[in-house]
Amino acid sequence: MDLKFKLKKTCSCGARLGEFETKWGKHKTPMFMPVGTQATVKTLSPEELKEAGADIILSNTYHLWLRPGEDIVDEAGGLHEFMNYKTGPILTDCGGFQVFSLAKPKDISEDGVKFKSHIDGKELFLTPEKSIEIQNKLGSDIIMSFDECPPYPVTHEYMKNSVERTLRWAKRSLDANKKRDTQAQFGIVQGGEFEDLRKWSAIETSKLDFDGYSVGGVSVGEAPDTKLKMIEYATKWLPEDKIRYLMGVGEPIDLIDGVIRGIDIFDCVSPTRLARHGNAHTRNGRMNIRNAKYARDFTPIEEDCDCYTCKNYTKAYIRHLIVADESFGQRLISIHNIRFLTKLMEDIREHIEKDDLLEFREEFYNKYYKK
Amino acid sequence: MDLKFKLKKTCSCGARLGEFETKWGKHKTPMFMPVGTQATVKTLSPEELKEAGADIILSNTYHLWLRPGEDIVDEAGGLHEFMNYKTGPILTDCGGFQVFSLAKPKDISEDGVKFKSHIDGKELFLTPEKSIEIQNKLGSDIIMSFDECPPYPVTHEYMKNSVERTLRWAKRSLDANKKRDTQAQFGIVQGGEFEDLRKWSAIETSKLDFDGYSVGGVSVGEAPDTKLKMIEYATKWLPEDKIRYLMGVGEPIDLIDGVIRGIDIFDCVSPTRLARHGNAHTRNGRMNIRNAKYARDFTPIEEDCDCYTCKNYTKAYIRHLIVADESFGQRLISIHNIRFLTKLMEDIREHIEKDDLLEFREEFYNKYYKK
Repeated sequence: MDLKFKLKKTCSCGARLGEFETKWGKHKTPMFMPVGTQATVKTLSPEELKEAGADIILSNTYHLWLRPGEDIVDEAGGLHEFMNYKTGPILTDCGGFQVFSLAKPKDISEDGVKFKSHIDGKELFLTPEKSIEIQNKLGSDIIMSFDECPPYPVTHEYMKNSVERTLRWAKRSLDANKKRDTQAQFGIVQGGEFEDLRKWSAIETSKLDFDGYSVGGVSVGEAPDTKLKMIEYATKWLPEDKIRYLMGVGEPIDLIDGVIRGIDIFDCVSPTRLARHGNAHTRNGRMNIRNAKYARDFTPIEEDCDCYTCKNYTKAYIRHLIVADESFGQRLISIHNIRFLTKLMEDIREHIEKDDLLEFREEFYNKYYKK
Repeated sequence: MDLKFKLKKTCSCGARLGEFETKWGKHKTPMFMPVGTQATVKTLSPEELKEAGADIILSNTYHLWLRPGEDIVDEAGGLHEFMNYKTGPILTDCGGFQVFSLAKPKDISEDGVKFKSHIDGKELFLTPEKSIEIQNKLGSDIIMSFDECPPYPVTHEYMKNSVERTLRWAKRSLDANKKRDTQAQFGIVQGGEFEDLRKWSAIETSKLDFDGYSVGGVSVGEAPDTKLKMIEYATKWLPEDKIRYLMGVGEPIDLIDGVIRGIDIFDCVSPTRLARHGNAHTRNGRMNIRNAKYARDFTPIEEDCDCYTCKNYTKAYIRHLIVADESFGQRLISIHNIRFLTKLMEDIREHIEKDDLLEFREEFYNKYYKK
């Protein structure tokens, strides 16, 4: 499926303003995608996601394969029908990251990965063909090619073999997609912190006919500077006219820095995961609502925030809910955190228009990170 | 505060149709009140409660006293402001039931009850005056007098001493209410399964100037027949022109049977507690959504239910959420279960109008309880 990506403007700093289309409408980039791991963005309804400014959401192939199983989702009429998400596109990942991080792989071969389920220990085998078959059944709007996501750090030799195999898997993934007319497909660039391997992976993957390219293996434990270099090494070799997606990154400054390095879309579990621990994003930094100083604070998390939570609830109440382990507290902070990131992306788009994103970055950084 | 209770009709079977007023509007009885133990009806927003047909909700004095503390709720402007529940009244219980069930009382004296907090083991002392002072600060629309809720069974002698003390506590509770102009107050009839003590408690409590009377100590482990007798023993001595409230009862047939014995309002945690375990009410009985037979059932919990859940989600999806331990599943079933009970009360009111509640009971019982 052609996403009709239009690059509307490239900033002097490297940031890109764009737009693409799906059957759900037009989608502005740069954008942030909340994650609905198990066919639900934790604690939230589709209506709340929409109100919080979410557009595309991501769901996890690995998790849905194990539970409830792709056949059930298929019989339901696909993931949109199954989870009643009918206001925007869904992107599914390929399962690679979860297989390598959650499931403790037993054995990686040219064919695929043999590993044990993190739920019941059952032995499973995931291949590029299987990952695509599952994603075809899930019926997401954008699917990802199957890749190896190596741990950090590994040797140059290990990574070279890995990116070469990931490229062969990318070709197999592309050949396996039986629904290319309705499901767009992205390739994944790996290569760790090695400039030559990122370059090779980006150039070779770009030769394949993907609808977008993602940068994988970032935010797996490397230093902040290394992270930015990993992105740069990849993006400078990616085609201008295709969407670029940085996987698993959701820290506010990383979103801005990713955009400056030419990234268009991002996903991360962080807004809902932070919420579970009582952490809320604010322009003045991360706030832990459990802090005793909020016990009598009858103002919203952020006075000028337009989210449902900030319009209706106080820090004192949300703190009470989190301390009392009431999931409504997690829900309220999740709504705010998602809105914080979708609003940040709106601001980023505005500052690309004005071509003053670097000034915005400076201002944002000083408020959020310097106490 | 005068609730201006109007008894509009008494059925041949004993069921009563009524209406009362608060500053939030007019409220039809018989009615069911969902419970928001810790200033939140678990997993639900105020908007969802309203949409599910909830009118009054109940919150727990004991829990709010311990956390966040009544002073914080008071400073917030009362419980409605604190929890953003602005579409209907809130009733608070007196803390008695929780003190006796959760907190393992150390020592009951004429003055009050000394016990340890179930949260941190801290020693606490609750008296009628303290219970009312807390409820005054919580700012609920209806408050309850402090009572002793003895375990079941106890001896006649124990119960006699207990109901006599509960009556003295009722007088002290009434004297302690500094906000009678804005907070209506109910007395509580105790007496266990003893007809003479229920009668005595009902008559003596009725002599005090309460705005309503509740029947306590029911559903604490006694047999179904005993339960109904406990209610009858009390209600036949209660004044016709005051609201009658059966505390802690939420099993569907018990609601109908309570109404037939002259009860006007009910509360119970059951709709949300059942939801947590994946249990949903249907007219054909209780459904455990975890059952494998629902894995591929793409129909709603109840086809003809008008709740948000049934209009938008399938059993297969809700089952997946519950099995995967996603709180959105609990939320969806909670919405349905609350709507099931508010709809049941609407049906009960309709059948009181038609004076065929006993036929409705028979029909309901046969569908819900006989497999």
